Amino acid sequence: MVTLDPRSGYVVLINTFTVQPDKAEELLRILSRATEHGMRHRPGFVSANLHVSRDRRYVTNYAQWSSQADLDAMMSDPAARVHMGEAAAMADSFEPIYYELRQSHSAA
Amino acid sequence: MVTLDPRSGYVVLINTFTVQPDKAEELLRILSRATEHGMRHRPGFVSANLHVSRDRRYVTNYAQWSSQADLDAMMSDPAARVHMGEAAAMADSFEPIYYELRQSHSAA
Repeated sequence: MVTLDPRSGYVVLINTFTVQPDKAEELLRILSRATEHGMRHRPGFVSANLHVSRDRRYVTNYAQWSSQADLDAMMSDPAARVHMGEAAAMADSFEPIYYELRQSHSAA
Repeated sequence: MVTLDPRSGYVVLINTFTVQPDKAEELLRILSRATEHGMRHRPGFVSANLHVSRDRRYVTNYAQWSSQADLDAMMSDPAARVHMGEAAAMADSFEPIYYELRQSHSAA
């Protein structure tokens, strides 16, 4: 189960892909495959959560990693770059932003 | 505890605020207050998760709502718009995108 907890200390990578709406499902499949066969076996990977926007113009991965060092190691690995290149080629653009989760608020 | 689960059927709203880095903490406080005193008491609110980017240029709320109808009701309420206006005034821009969580993958 994927949980959000500011005390985890995870690095959060939110990667927003802008796509043509008719390519949203194919991009989802590419990201899913890359996650199952690559990312989730890497040291420090915690979770990837794949979203499709209501208007199908965005496919967004909310990913958790144990540390920045693990994330940097993945990013500098040519094998990982092949997967990312395949996703990038399907999208019009993408914007990866690195975050710290600071607060979680649940319903009263 | 906040959990991500595609089977929940929640509507996910990812709202990315672009800010001057020296305003990131103040925007975080505004969003935190608006969530505690307003949003979390509303019908259909599930969670708000406030992130600050590593470069402090983005403050992003990953919010879960039970249904689009609940989210629409909040959006059309003038009291909620006051809170959102205060946050928007602190930011250079903001981009709310509505999503469905389609897949969650955890570490192998």
